[in-house]
Amino acid sequence: MKHLLSTRDLSRTDALAILDTAEQMAAVSQREVKKLPVLRGRTVVNLFFEDSTRTRISFEAAAKRLSADVINFSAKGSSVSKGESLKDTAQTLAAIGADAVVIRHGSSGAPARLAGSGWIDAAVLNAGDGTHEHPTQALLDAFTMRRHWARLHGTASTGTDLTGMHVVIVGDVLHSRVARSDLWLLRTLGASVTLVAPPTLLPFGVESWPCEISYDLDEALETGPDAVMMLRVQGERMNSAFFPSVREYSRRWGFDDVRLGRLDTLGLTDTILLHPGPMNRGLEISSRAADSPRATILEQVSNGVSVRMAALYLLLAGENTPAAPATLENA
Amino acid sequence: MKHLLSTRDLSRTDALAILDTAEQMAAVSQREVKKLPVLRGRTVVNLFFEDSTRTRISFEAAAKRLSADVINFSAKGSSVSKGESLKDTAQTLAAIGADAVVIRHGSSGAPARLAGSGWIDAAVLNAGDGTHEHPTQALLDAFTMRRHWARLHGTASTGTDLTGMHVVIVGDVLHSRVARSDLWLLRTLGASVTLVAPPTLLPFGVESWPCEISYDLDEALETGPDAVMMLRVQGERMNSAFFPSVREYSRRWGFDDVRLGRLDTLGLTDTILLHPGPMNRGLEISSRAADSPRATILEQVSNGVSVRMAALYLLLAGENTPAAPATLENA
Amino acid sequence: MKHLLSTRDLSRTDALAILDTAEQMAAVSQREVKKLPVLRGRTVVNLFFEDSTRTRISFEAAAKRLSADVINFSAKGSSVSKGESLKDTAQTLAAIGADAVVIRHGSSGAPARLAGSGWIDAAVLNAGDGTHEHPTQALLDAFTMRRHWARLHGTASTGTDLTGMHVVIVGDVLHSRVARSDLWLLRTLGASVTLVAPPTLLPFGVESWPCEISYDLDEALETGPDAVMMLRVQGERMNSAFFPSVREYSRRWGFDDVRLGRLDTLGLTDTILLHPGPMNRGLEISSRAADSPRATILEQVSNGVSVRMAALYLLLAGENTPAAPATLENA
Repeated sequence: MKHLLSTRDLSRTDALAILDTAEQMAAVSQREVKKLPVLRGRTVVNLFFEDSTRTRISFEAAAKRLSADVINFSAKGSSVSKGESLKDTAQTLAAIGADAVVIRHGSSGAPARLAGSGWIDAAVLNAGDGTHEHPTQALLDAFTMRRHWARLHGTASTGTDLTGMHVVIVGDVLHSRVARSDLWLLRTLGASVTLVAPPTLLPFGVESWPCEISYDLDEALETGPDAVMMLRVQGERMNSAFFPSVREYSRRWGFDDVRLGRLDTLGLTDTILLHPGPMNRGLEISSRAADSPRATILEQVSNGVSVRMAALYLLLAGENTPAAPATLENA
Repeated sequence: MKHLLSTRDLSRTDALAILDTAEQMAAVSQREVKKLPVLRGRTVVNLFFEDSTRTRISFEAAAKRLSADVINFSAKGSSVSKGESLKDTAQTLAAIGADAVVIRHGSSGAPARLAGSGWIDAAVLNAGDGTHEHPTQALLDAFTMRRHWARLHGTASTGTDLTGMHVVIVGDVLHSRVARSDLWLLRTLGASVTLVAPPTLLPFGVESWPCEISYDLDEALETGPDAVMMLRVQGERMNSAFFPSVREYSRRWGFDDVRLGRLDTLGLTDTILLHPGPMNRGLEISSRAADSPRATILEQVSNGVSVRMAALYLLLAGENTPAAPATLENA
Repeated sequence: MKHLLSTRDLSRTDALAILDTAEQMAAVSQREVKKLPVLRGRTVVNLFFEDSTRTRISFEAAAKRLSADVINFSAKGSSVSKGESLKDTAQTLAAIGADAVVIRHGSSGAPARLAGSGWIDAAVLNAGDGTHEHPTQALLDAFTMRRHWARLHGTASTGTDLTGMHVVIVGDVLHSRVARSDLWLLRTLGASVTLVAPPTLLPFGVESWPCEISYDLDEALETGPDAVMMLRVQGERMNSAFFPSVREYSRRWGFDDVRLGRLDTLGLTDTILLHPGPMNRGLEISSRAADSPRATILEQVSNGVSVRMAALYLLLAGENTPAAPATLENA
């Protein structure tokens, strides 16, 4: 692995390497001194063309926990947004000494353009690009599901994939990079996926995606999912002609108290509830659901730091880095 | 101590523990290498819902001098301000691994809500909430006064409180969290306090506060204060109906050159002049007063770093941390 | 050296000390762990009254590579811009413990005022002030030229100046602090300089500057320069009455493909092309020129970090610091 651009192109081996390394990173985060010296002297630049405080903070915490130096670069309002090309920006960051560039960009494909054109030597990590992908989000979701599975079945939490799991992803799939990244990764790891959305919020060509499609959340719940991922509703979408009314959205595609109860009725005692955050409580998820023991929302946030530590470590700590390096043990 | 939310609820023992530890921190800041390894691997998040560059920088410098990792989070314009609840934000920060959250918020009581609801494990430090409190400002003021007192009387600068001191606080008490935090702490430490303000800029119920009230700064000066604290005038208040004209405010409640001279006339050779900054020179304080040897304004800024180091240290370095740890000596 | 305010006042000895130390810093940046412990415990504040992401990031990377703590302070919109005096801001930063203040300011002379008035003890580094100076830019340009010269002639890359070099600087000299800083430093180091600009974009009194003046870029190229520095066109200037049309500017004073070819025709095989960035491709420089082997634009960015490391090191690491300290070798 040289970059982390998408889960669509991520091999099962590399995905498992990240998840397994993330387990080790999670152990580091339990220590008294939550810090590894493995990226000392390396520089990670957070290049954010869109605001995303929580993703930026998670990457920043991950990089600092590995002893890297972090430089934040909010490109909104800078010379970058005033017409400097992405290429010139990227090459400038590389010339300054960036070893990794974590990029969030409003245009789908911007991180791949950065990585693929030979412009820079630095590792590129996609922190969300347009409606395309958000691979570290998918990895933290998969990590959270695998841990849940391991606890439930007493299986190992490393080395295994998600074969046998069934995941339902609900919401505005049309605009969601999280849905896409989740889908590709979950499929690679052997899970089956059902996408649930209003008909107007499904992308063109979705029939050819490797998943089931449903317009009815209640029907989808009856298939007995192991995990339900509620997508965030973007406020700015809600007034578009394609968007149901807030009231209708919430009633038909929101995870409300009624559906929380229905999981019990259906005997789905072990089904977990995920959300990438930040939540619109009362819209796509009710407060009771968000705060219920089924919800893994805060675990996801925690796991996000571990997964990003793993990704940064594997991309930066050297080409010959083993997936689960013995050196971490005593570092 | 688990949090630092207000001085009203701060015990004399805890207040002295912070002040005494701050003396040790001040000594560290005199060293060639101004850095202690005591918070290595800890993460301090500055969560600022209101701009306050100098308070943020002071906390950032304090945390870094203790080797903590610092993450700045300006919540203005983020998803937080767009409706995410304080609870979700706080829990997200905790899940990311924040060991301490330094919060500045426009609403009185926000830090207490954060700390008191069991939402998070992290230590919460109030960096100013609405018109409620600004406890580290009060602690640095008390620290500055105690040092002054010790120099003057040859007493010890640790272990002692402010018994016998008389402090006059002047200005827009109605809107001032600094005035409130100062008052409660100074009283806890044994000082007597007189508040001086235009009648319209005193809060309802002030009669029941443990202090003298005056509308006349010159009369208050005649009582022979050991310290005079000039409050900052907030520009946005000045056009309100309750606010005197700038000219009248400055003449009656500003510390101008005339009053600077009067301290000499009154024989108050040792009275010091404090201001929390940033100053409006020529409004609540004249330039000559601000730059006079009586002014301790820059000492206050310096002491602010020591006090915040002490607070972070005591809250984060372990439950069994002694107030004045021997380990600091050789750290 | 206590401050780095301008190249006009920089002695040849001090300039060479910075350039020679920067060579050592460049070597550090090639190491596996690109970090020196020499400024551990020192605090560098980036005080930026104007946006300049790349200069800020370069200083931040430089300071962190020397193990200093960095605090960023964007003064736009802060109490500073709301009327607090530069003096009070500076003294506050010093009181907080800043060992160095890197300042970018819209007013010519602000850094000198900060440094010269005895307000603060901290080292002041000018990161660009009004239309006055931008000394670290000039130093990185000179560093880049010296390396080029050394490669070309097999001379040493330390200890030598630029005697014999001929440099052409092209563009809006009137508003350019880079042009001014370059001119003074290049002259101090023994190079000859020709300024090329539209007549309306030359400052009053330029006849007395120690350089040739030309309105014609093609004529200037015929003099056989060793280096051509293309100045950035500031978008906000372009609509002024003094500014040629974009089309005319680009045709007459831009470094376009035709001029790129002419260098070959003229037999100037070794002439390099510099630009301080960010570039307006197609305006003052064509894409082919910017991406040609003659262009040293990314080298300049890299060298900027080394030069800023050198400046911070020499100003902060102690008064008795030798220019090329042996301690760096094994640090």
